[in-house]
Amino acid sequence: MPSELELIEAFLAPFPGGERVVIGPGSDCAAVRPARGMKLVVTTDAVVERVHFSWLRFTPEDVGWKSLAVNLSDLAAAGARPRWFLCALAVPRGTTLRQASGVARGMAQLARRHRCALIGGNVTAASAWSVTITALGEAARPLSRAGARPGDALVVVGRLGEAAAGLRPGASAAESKAQRRPEPLVREGMKANAFASAAVDVSDGFLRDLGHLLRESRCGAQVECSLLPARDLDLALSGGEDYALLLSVPRRKLAALQRAVRCIEVGRIVRGSGIQLTEHGRPRPLPRVTGFDHLK
Amino acid sequence: MPSELELIEAFLAPFPGGERVVIGPGSDCAAVRPARGMKLVVTTDAVVERVHFSWLRFTPEDVGWKSLAVNLSDLAAAGARPRWFLCALAVPRGTTLRQASGVARGMAQLARRHRCALIGGNVTAASAWSVTITALGEAARPLSRAGARPGDALVVVGRLGEAAAGLRPGASAAESKAQRRPEPLVREGMKANAFASAAVDVSDGFLRDLGHLLRESRCGAQVECSLLPARDLDLALSGGEDYALLLSVPRRKLAALQRAVRCIEVGRIVRGSGIQLTEHGRPRPLPRVTGFDHLK
Repeated sequence: MPSELELIEAFLAPFPGGERVVIGPGSDCAAVRPARGMKLVVTTDAVVERVHFSWLRFTPEDVGWKSLAVNLSDLAAAGARPRWFLCALAVPRGTTLRQASGVARGMAQLARRHRCALIGGNVTAASAWSVTITALGEAARPLSRAGARPGDALVVVGRLGEAAAGLRPGASAAESKAQRRPEPLVREGMKANAFASAAVDVSDGFLRDLGHLLRESRCGAQVECSLLPARDLDLALSGGEDYALLLSVPRRKLAALQRAVRCIEVGRIVRGSGIQLTEHGRPRPLPRVTGFDHLK
Repeated sequence: MPSELELIEAFLAPFPGGERVVIGPGSDCAAVRPARGMKLVVTTDAVVERVHFSWLRFTPEDVGWKSLAVNLSDLAAAGARPRWFLCALAVPRGTTLRQASGVARGMAQLARRHRCALIGGNVTAASAWSVTITALGEAARPLSRAGARPGDALVVVGRLGEAAAGLRPGASAAESKAQRRPEPLVREGMKANAFASAAVDVSDGFLRDLGHLLRESRCGAQVECSLLPARDLDLALSGGEDYALLLSVPRRKLAALQRAVRCIEVGRIVRGSGIQLTEHGRPRPLPRVTGFDHLK
């Protein structure tokens, strides 16, 4: 088992510096200079061994990539530009420098792609691996789950059900990659920001995350299942970890959004509450389990 | 076991809203409006069951308090004013709403005292409880561990060794409180900011944290042990979790600091590296174990 300082040193090695970083890793706090007039957008999300991943299926690089990806996906849903992040590691006895370096490499690969700088973190012992990242971004007008209005179009960016399919035996390479190395739709989220009235990323399952958006917006929705960008409808509706974006868009802005971002209209926001599904225009009952409850 | 949404609802209940919060808990991201001209100061720290606390000794309220306190102490070391925080919970099967509410109440009590608003978080299943908080503050000129210069006075704010004493049988009420409900020295840190050249909070033990400061500042230090604000010298040197502040202060600013903040001069920064201890002016050897390694 390496010492705490050895592990921190190995972990920090692959990360480049960042812009507007006043104090980086190595002090009690990091300090950054936020851009004038922008809102600071912040999210935190954890990836836990035996809950979100197993070492049988994931390489250390996968774990590092995915831990950051799930956070960048939240920034994408807010339409924010990623800037900085902090990484709190919990590692069990027997953790090697090789494992820690692998996690760091996968994380740094995605961080470089989105020019998001590691500015601080924490390390502690624990009974299992977990990586809790807090990502900071900037947006002039961040999107939230509230703001959808009856009449808005319901739009999906990205594909549904692939990450869940990636857990099944015989998964395709694309499905396995969607599970281990999801691509956060950061550029798409930033572009969609100008058009959408509300947004959520599909992490817990389409129906469950749509439910979150509807509850916060105090609306209902109608969804035509045949339009969902998916091969397997059950997984599309209730499988989690897709990191697609689900947007409500005022009708008059829909054409402009569709020119800016590759997306599919799958339904519309209506008065009331709850979700009505149709399949080729005919009512379809809601599945009994509608997504991922992190405590069940 | 409550559902994820039930647990989140119970957890959020005791927290008041905050200032300059654009999007609070309930969306993928929180969004805040940073103050113009201030640096954003950020830290993350975790408190883990069976590593940092046991339910035999800690009430849920203690765990909530301490989880936030260790983060506010980091902001205090930077001389920053706490503003907002996010809380990532990991909870095992069998967690009750009563436990979660207790953690939230203890955390909210400290948050109110320092006007620090909960703006977001995450919840996941895990094999043991952990609370990972990311705290955000603001400072015009945040302190770091780098910046100490030979000739600076070495100053301690707060007491040393009490939290470690609080773990021993027969601990006094004050010692037990120092372990379960440490008081982050936020106001003291903000005042000291105007005078100090570098700072660290004593979380891993006086010698170990002083070592961090010296390494980042590329200096050494002489410390007179009889001046340390402690009852038990061994615990003062190497016991962790004190959340005292350790500052280097240019000599010409020392008197002004001492008028502003109750503090004790315990030594000085010197050229070179490492720590030389004296006791009543005579050399004293360094202890073999100099503090808390989170992985040992």
